Amino acid sequence: MTFEEIFKSHPAPTSLDRDTLLRCIRECLDCAASCTACADACLSEDDLRMLVRCIRLNLDCADACGATSRTVARQTAADLGVIRTTIKACAAACLACGEECERHAVHHEHCRLCAEVCRRCERACADVLALID
Amino acid sequence: MTFEEIFKSHPAPTSLDRDTLLRCIRECLDCAASCTACADACLSEDDLRMLVRCIRLNLDCADACGATSRTVARQTAADLGVIRTTIKACAAACLACGEECERHAVHHEHCRLCAEVCRRCERACADVLALID
Amino acid sequence: MTFEEIFKSHPAPTSLDRDTLLRCIRECLDCAASCTACADACLSEDDLRMLVRCIRLNLDCADACGATSRTVARQTAADLGVIRTTIKACAAACLACGEECERHAVHHEHCRLCAEVCRRCERACADVLALID
Amino acid sequence: MTFEEIFKSHPAPTSLDRDTLLRCIRECLDCAASCTACADACLSEDDLRMLVRCIRLNLDCADACGATSRTVARQTAADLGVIRTTIKACAAACLACGEECERHAVHHEHCRLCAEVCRRCERACADVLALID
Repeated sequence: MTFEEIFKSHPAPTSLDRDTLLRCIRECLDCAASCTACADACLSEDDLRMLVRCIRLNLDCADACGATSRTVARQTAADLGVIRTTIKACAAACLACGEECERHAVHHEHCRLCAEVCRRCERACADVLALID
Repeated sequence: MTFEEIFKSHPAPTSLDRDTLLRCIRECLDCAASCTACADACLSEDDLRMLVRCIRLNLDCADACGATSRTVARQTAADLGVIRTTIKACAAACLACGEECERHAVHHEHCRLCAEVCRRCERACADVLALID
Repeated sequence: MTFEEIFKSHPAPTSLDRDTLLRCIRECLDCAASCTACADACLSEDDLRMLVRCIRLNLDCADACGATSRTVARQTAADLGVIRTTIKACAAACLACGEECERHAVHHEHCRLCAEVCRRCERACADVLALID
Repeated sequence: MTFEEIFKSHPAPTSLDRDTLLRCIRECLDCAASCTACADACLSEDDLRMLVRCIRLNLDCADACGATSRTVARQTAADLGVIRTTIKACAAACLACGEECERHAVHHEHCRLCAEVCRRCERACADVLALID
């Protein structure tokens, strides 16, 4: 994606490992869009009532991933305390949403896929935390 | 604001103290808008170069407050781990942004006001954390 | 709210009428939070299946109002074409969401209140459009 | 990206051309992240004062693309009036931001790349509009 090239052309790049940050941003973008699409797919399912908690956590996770993608994408004058807690919140949202989606994975392909991307995003967040904790 | 009445008319309200949650949401909304407006005001200042860190933290804080206002506003099937880490991230962003804004408070009224709302939002976050930690 | 004072302390203020812009931002913030809370309240209702369209439009409207509140809050080097189309999109989302909420107003107080704030936000958008069209 | 598979597994898919919608969502995600990263890169440039309008339009464009990616990603009970005006606002933001970035393309690689992704996103929006206008 083009944003990765833009990130790499920053005039005062971060001292943190660039590939780890980029993977985190990429997974956050995919996870945010996946959770938005999964919540919407759930809204059209016959067993909608079973999916209420899934929808709610999808929305939380989309919000957390969106905010995290932007905060990690900024390299100017970064505050590690902000980045650390933001990524922890994102990982917590991915964990909760991924576990709930997993419970519906047998019945709904979108939930199975969303559980996957949540786990991947959670790992990408953990990899950034390992750089700064 | 009308959203407060809507929050109170929820058919399955949260067991957490409603007024504490509402104050947190209200402060997050004001802080997000304040940080957006402060970043923009900074962009028009003569000493713009001195305000780069302020702008960056304004943008982080606006993102954190926006995500937090939405997550706290949801009462259906809440996950306390998600709410707790989200609010901690918000408080950290408010702290960092508030301290940076404070450094420019003498020269820029928008920074002085923004430091105030950041501190108020940080306290409102701490009050919610006291309910769930 | 503090953001209004920050908006007023901008070093290079917009030439558009400030009170009209501020009312638009305020209504957008309330409407975004109201739609987020209404979607969540709908998720907990017994007649959830009847409210699917309401939830979807609530989410669209919250997104439109959020983006619009930020774009209108920026006074530095504004582009009227961007502001005009953004506000038109916001008014369209408020109209669609308000009409759908109105259909459920008899049964759900949160929908009745949300219809009200959508209409108020739509009017506040129309008032800004009248300044720039 | 995984969100594309989730979009395709929707139980009540849109009647609009799926590939056109998916390209629009993908470009919006890339453009939103690109504009966020370009604004941040601009903040670290020596000729920061020349880039104030670029930063402002980057922020508007990121907001518009974010809201549009989510609205287009929802297939349940879509309202064409909302989608149409949202995409028009996004195209207008991409146009304004892309033109401004282009002016700095010779001096800043991030602006050159951001102008490219803005143009690509604007075209993807136009392609969706051609389906529904």
